[in-house]
Amino acid sequence: MPAHLPLLAPSEGAVCCGTVTGSVISVEDAERTARVFKALGDPTRVRLLSLIAASADGEACICDLTEPVGLSQPTVSHHMKQLVDAGLATREQRGRWAYYRVVTDALGAASQTLRP
Amino acid sequence: MPAHLPLLAPSEGAVCCGTVTGSVISVEDAERTARVFKALGDPTRVRLLSLIAASADGEACICDLTEPVGLSQPTVSHHMKQLVDAGLATREQRGRWAYYRVVTDALGAASQTLRP
Repeated sequence: MPAHLPLLAPSEGAVCCGTVTGSVISVEDAERTARVFKALGDPTRVRLLSLIAASADGEACICDLTEPVGLSQPTVSHHMKQLVDAGLATREQRGRWAYYRVVTDALGAASQTLRP
Repeated sequence: MPAHLPLLAPSEGAVCCGTVTGSVISVEDAERTARVFKALGDPTRVRLLSLIAASADGEACICDLTEPVGLSQPTVSHHMKQLVDAGLATREQRGRWAYYRVVTDALGAASQTLRP
């Protein structure tokens, strides 16, 4: 039996909304929703989000992210750009380094989209 | 501040578990999690799930899915295989046609993984 989900408002730049199992999702909402899940559809990006969320104050320097995922800084930057573009993380340049935070509201909105 | 999420048990063939924002997710859990989100990371697949969930009795014949998404049956079959392989849908062959259902528990598990 299809469950009904609330329609979600975009928040903090998150491009996620619409319902997956409520009523039939529109093409536009399906595109927005898929964009977020595509960003989450890579194990390195899932680990990066997790590492950032688990960091002190919920913020991580890119300089501390390369070693745990075993990838070069340009590769980590590329993954982080996809997360930022999907509204799942924010980036702040401070001096030499970029610092990232998870957009908890965007994860929450994506979570809501799937809730049965 | 990182939120804490419960560790999820796999359910009904869903390959989703682990936590994204609780503690640092393991490589294995990140791979399982990403596999599910990769399947969700395509607008056609999001629409197919939505169409199936909204169908009578929560079940849809592939013969009723091609027209709404405007794609050929082999292409829809290919998308559905990715959803089935990710544990997000089940497939039953009855005579000439395949019938699909959404695995609500798997969507729920994926939703939990992201919950702030």
